[in-house]
Amino acid sequence: MAKILAVNAGSSSLKFQLLNMPEEDVIASGLVERIGFEDAVFNIEFRDQERSETVHIPDHAVAVQMLLEVLVDLQIVKSLEDIVGVGHRVVHGGEKFSDSVKITDEVLKTIEELKDLAPLHNPANATGIRAFEKVLPKVEQVAVFDTAFHQTMPKESYMYASPYDWYEKYGVRRYGFHGTSHKYVAERTAQLINKSLEDTKIITVHIGNGGSLAAVDGGKSVNTSMGFTPLAGLVMGTRTGDIDPSILPFVMEKENMNIDEAISALNKESGLEGVSGISSDMRDIDKGKSEDNERAELAFDLFVKRVVDYIAAYYVELGGADAIVFTAGIGENDIEVRKAVMSRLAVLGIKINEEANNTRGQEIKISTDDSKIQVWVVPTNEEVMIARDTLRLIK
Amino acid sequence: MAKILAVNAGSSSLKFQLLNMPEEDVIASGLVERIGFEDAVFNIEFRDQERSETVHIPDHAVAVQMLLEVLVDLQIVKSLEDIVGVGHRVVHGGEKFSDSVKITDEVLKTIEELKDLAPLHNPANATGIRAFEKVLPKVEQVAVFDTAFHQTMPKESYMYASPYDWYEKYGVRRYGFHGTSHKYVAERTAQLINKSLEDTKIITVHIGNGGSLAAVDGGKSVNTSMGFTPLAGLVMGTRTGDIDPSILPFVMEKENMNIDEAISALNKESGLEGVSGISSDMRDIDKGKSEDNERAELAFDLFVKRVVDYIAAYYVELGGADAIVFTAGIGENDIEVRKAVMSRLAVLGIKINEEANNTRGQEIKISTDDSKIQVWVVPTNEEVMIARDTLRLIK
Repeated sequence: MAKILAVNAGSSSLKFQLLNMPEEDVIASGLVERIGFEDAVFNIEFRDQERSETVHIPDHAVAVQMLLEVLVDLQIVKSLEDIVGVGHRVVHGGEKFSDSVKITDEVLKTIEELKDLAPLHNPANATGIRAFEKVLPKVEQVAVFDTAFHQTMPKESYMYASPYDWYEKYGVRRYGFHGTSHKYVAERTAQLINKSLEDTKIITVHIGNGGSLAAVDGGKSVNTSMGFTPLAGLVMGTRTGDIDPSILPFVMEKENMNIDEAISALNKESGLEGVSGISSDMRDIDKGKSEDNERAELAFDLFVKRVVDYIAAYYVELGGADAIVFTAGIGENDIEVRKAVMSRLAVLGIKINEEANNTRGQEIKISTDDSKIQVWVVPTNEEVMIARDTLRLIK
Repeated sequence: MAKILAVNAGSSSLKFQLLNMPEEDVIASGLVERIGFEDAVFNIEFRDQERSETVHIPDHAVAVQMLLEVLVDLQIVKSLEDIVGVGHRVVHGGEKFSDSVKITDEVLKTIEELKDLAPLHNPANATGIRAFEKVLPKVEQVAVFDTAFHQTMPKESYMYASPYDWYEKYGVRRYGFHGTSHKYVAERTAQLINKSLEDTKIITVHIGNGGSLAAVDGGKSVNTSMGFTPLAGLVMGTRTGDIDPSILPFVMEKENMNIDEAISALNKESGLEGVSGISSDMRDIDKGKSEDNERAELAFDLFVKRVVDYIAAYYVELGGADAIVFTAGIGENDIEVRKAVMSRLAVLGIKINEEANNTRGQEIKISTDDSKIQVWVVPTNEEVMIARDTLRLIK
């Protein structure tokens, strides 16, 4: 049985999941945090057990070494040879990668070069890859890009109306993110509605602390709401989403900020948190709303309205839709948000099944049988997608 | 018979139209350009005649004096007492003005204070008002604001998800512009479709060199595509419209620009011109497209797609629409743009009447009788709206 590790490396963290493939069973999962610090935390869960340790972990290679030792110690794997592949989440593939890819020196170099477009994420992802190369030199590794799924967008979806040479010289365009999630839920939804993926038009609504929508036509992304960066599109936990850029020079002068501080405010002090003044977490917004907190209500309404605007645009762009699917933290769990979105879509013939919607975290159809468009909740699973692509590419 | 002057004052220009009210007949119209220069140009048209003069016009008051003398000289008016009111287009009314208003010292002061939000336009508009106050001290003047019509927007339409105190302290919100035009075509369209304005849901598509859409519910604007400034929303002649603001710091570093230069590039080197590399004029884009120029095609597609996105969002927001109405330079005259927009809206049950669409500059229904939503072309007339409001307020 092939065991595959799905890995998401941050600058000081390493998230992992070990899966049996092709069964897609999760054998163990965990997270190493504060890598580089004296008090790094190593956490692993397996067979309903959890083990947590606070130790000095100087770098990602040591974290990987430790992870592999624990897997053997706890007899989660018999030997390291059981692990046939490691799949890495990589945030930015630019225009270079329209699919997952086996990692070679060339590929790793390109991932590092793309740091221009993802200065926080790609270098961290590359660090994770190098750590596994060092500790498991014989095991094949695969990169799975957040952007790859959206590389099928037509030019009219990915180009901005900014000076054309900004695109040619610097790659200024819409890339989109959360691609692995959009792809997973689109494919799963096609199965759930009993249609072949090629014949479906699906709008995928990935809403968590970050969020984006995608218009998926025949399994291919034709549009998505995030842009050159994850700041664009929906209202998010702390991000504005779409906003008039002229606000930047205006506020920079008023608040005596530089451009980096102003963009940081749009990324970190805005969204649900900036509007409500309460929290970036939709659960707190729901609570504030239930207590008639006006700014919580406003934050909720702004969030819902933007989701609805994009669904409307993608419905027309796709020329109709077979299904709309909610996923990620809010999409899977927030009954109020789904209800509000669906009620605003009534004119498209969407009807909510209140009882079905009154659930959290499960795969379920939440529209009535006579709804013109099926609406589903499908919990996302990026790790499974990473493991699937890894298995496919190392074969 | 009441004669009313409708005036649009720029920093070095004065556009005017003299109308008989309430008949709404245009008696004369013209433009003074290069005010403040030795070679200012005074131009007036009346009864199929045109008169043009190049003279030194030191300031707006002199331009007004000259205009009035010409009106008497040419016997367009018998005496200056025929002119019972002057209506001024004023760009920004902030949150202070939700309707046109008779100009008092207090009003003029407020208009000048709003220069913070419209640094180029409000001071020029105020200069025009002062010039008429000086030359025609006894005639009542009225301010008609571009933003006023959109003051009926609900908070969920006008608020951004940026830090809430930016709104409280500095008025950072969506204002919208072209209000006089949106209002005019919405009211006219209600007549054309034989419904009372209160019972209509109309999407107004004002597309010229600048452009915006409005969702008009029962005669009231509930949403519009321009934002804090006219940069936001649609792709325009030289403006990007909506764009990921994170592009600004990225490009500023690459091109060694400051924030004002970067925003200027989004306003003046983008849009149809920036994408096509040909022209900001849709007629040139249409021509480029007919010659298979790829970048002209891209500019056209980006323009059309954005219009369609907003129509889709407003259709859902309004819960349906009785009519969609095209106006302004492109909306009134560009057969290709209207056709492309309508064909992309097929899923909403819109059907084009190709023969009717094959016309320019006239009031006409361009959808078929079995189209689910009526689509109209209605030439806009901001001067008539200014004259109407002026007449109403001076009575």
